[in-house]
Amino acid sequence: MAHFQCQQKVQFQHCDPAGIVFYPRYFEMINSVVENWFDEGLNIPFSILHMERGSAIPTATINTQFKAPSRLDDRLDMAMTLLKLGGASLDLEIEATCGSETRFHCALTLVHVKMVDGRPKAWPEDIRSMIEHLMKETRS
Amino acid sequence: MAHFQCQQKVQFQHCDPAGIVFYPRYFEMINSVVENWFDEGLNIPFSILHMERGSAIPTATINTQFKAPSRLDDRLDMAMTLLKLGGASLDLEIEATCGSETRFHCALTLVHVKMVDGRPKAWPEDIRSMIEHLMKETRS
Amino acid sequence: MAHFQCQQKVQFQHCDPAGIVFYPRYFEMINSVVENWFDEGLNIPFSILHMERGSAIPTATINTQFKAPSRLDDRLDMAMTLLKLGGASLDLEIEATCGSETRFHCALTLVHVKMVDGRPKAWPEDIRSMIEHLMKETRS
Amino acid sequence: MAHFQCQQKVQFQHCDPAGIVFYPRYFEMINSVVENWFDEGLNIPFSILHMERGSAIPTATINTQFKAPSRLDDRLDMAMTLLKLGGASLDLEIEATCGSETRFHCALTLVHVKMVDGRPKAWPEDIRSMIEHLMKETRS
Repeated sequence: MAHFQCQQKVQFQHCDPAGIVFYPRYFEMINSVVENWFDEGLNIPFSILHMERGSAIPTATINTQFKAPSRLDDRLDMAMTLLKLGGASLDLEIEATCGSETRFHCALTLVHVKMVDGRPKAWPEDIRSMIEHLMKETRS
Repeated sequence: MAHFQCQQKVQFQHCDPAGIVFYPRYFEMINSVVENWFDEGLNIPFSILHMERGSAIPTATINTQFKAPSRLDDRLDMAMTLLKLGGASLDLEIEATCGSETRFHCALTLVHVKMVDGRPKAWPEDIRSMIEHLMKETRS
Repeated sequence: MAHFQCQQKVQFQHCDPAGIVFYPRYFEMINSVVENWFDEGLNIPFSILHMERGSAIPTATINTQFKAPSRLDDRLDMAMTLLKLGGASLDLEIEATCGSETRFHCALTLVHVKMVDGRPKAWPEDIRSMIEHLMKETRS
Repeated sequence: MAHFQCQQKVQFQHCDPAGIVFYPRYFEMINSVVENWFDEGLNIPFSILHMERGSAIPTATINTQFKAPSRLDDRLDMAMTLLKLGGASLDLEIEATCGSETRFHCALTLVHVKMVDGRPKAWPEDIRSMIEHLMKETRS
């Protein structure tokens, strides 16, 4: 499936003096969704990706709209959708909802790089083929 | 002036296992630029804004392009430019450079809200007039 | 039971350029254990404690020994033990292990305060009685 | 001098829904004091220490008493004192004050390790001799 879902509880550490999530903490949650997807969806934990395979997937662009504030103990449903696979890039979007309310929406582009020089490199064949497979499933 | 500048040193706490700034930490730096501008540029420290005046300025949208990685001990010049003042909003952009290299660029929209209900409220007159003044200076 | 247990996966956001958990992030995990215990063990989520009941439980002292480093994707078992209930305080310890290896051990004292003035106040009766109950169970 | 001093402003990112510094953020400040001391006091920026010299200085133990809460915009004076230099370790203490009020006090032990295996290794001669020199000055 081109979709991946996980849940994030809003904890004390995420909230600011206004009692709502401090938005930089949302980006930790967003990074966590991608990390969980690599682990559970692609079966490539970040430790393997970075340490054994010498790859990294920095975020090249990320555009975010915050629709409504989140508060302590809210359970956020984080829904990720794969949009477009490039040579060394991947476009995806993540929407966070709580009940029926959208909290934020973001579109981001990841780039596959080698850690040794930090330069973009074509996706490894196994990762490319897994992502292509996931994206096809969705259309059928 | 419609410009505000400050510097941020990349510290150990900002860096990830790839040895570069973990991008959610950039958003702490971005928030810090806005906070410094309110303090030094508008003479309204965040403690006064939030605690005494009961206002908050959550970020409604933020679009960011990361151009090149930053590393431990880099000194980032953070340059903020005011773009457009709305009834309860403010558009601005921030560019981070290190030497002649751009590290990231972001465009964001702040919204003025009252903490009591979290709903948008027209900018207080003193803040509006200071921002208008700063934006005029630049054009002349 | 005077024991509470939860698990924490080491994520990318916790790790530093040396590839191990940056120790300030451990304290976010420690705070999270206490938060989870209030939620699941005492049935008082932090949102209720802070917002509805106007209480807070700042940490007064915390002493920590880091025994061995933790790395990306490690699953840490966080075991909390209640040690001593005072008038407005609570002593507890938390040990984090991964497999058979201890990663850190900490002893901390929480203090119950009212948010309105931040001053220590005797534990509310329901909380005191639940904690006493948990501590008795363990001895039997 | 066996003393090193720097200042830290309490920012929005440090504060929790109770309006005071979330204590895990204090440990980022504490790490920052050590980092600044290496940079300014020993003239060995962390980037050189870690990347060029292949060393790291993880914290082995840290004991902290929080005396009074800190709030948004407080200026904290962070005073570090060198206590004892061991073969591969260094004991020091840090006290944070705001005006005449102590906010927290901590005693910590750093250990010099090589990044390649993470195992303790005697301090390099130049660092040892600089620290010894600093510690002597203070006594005279």
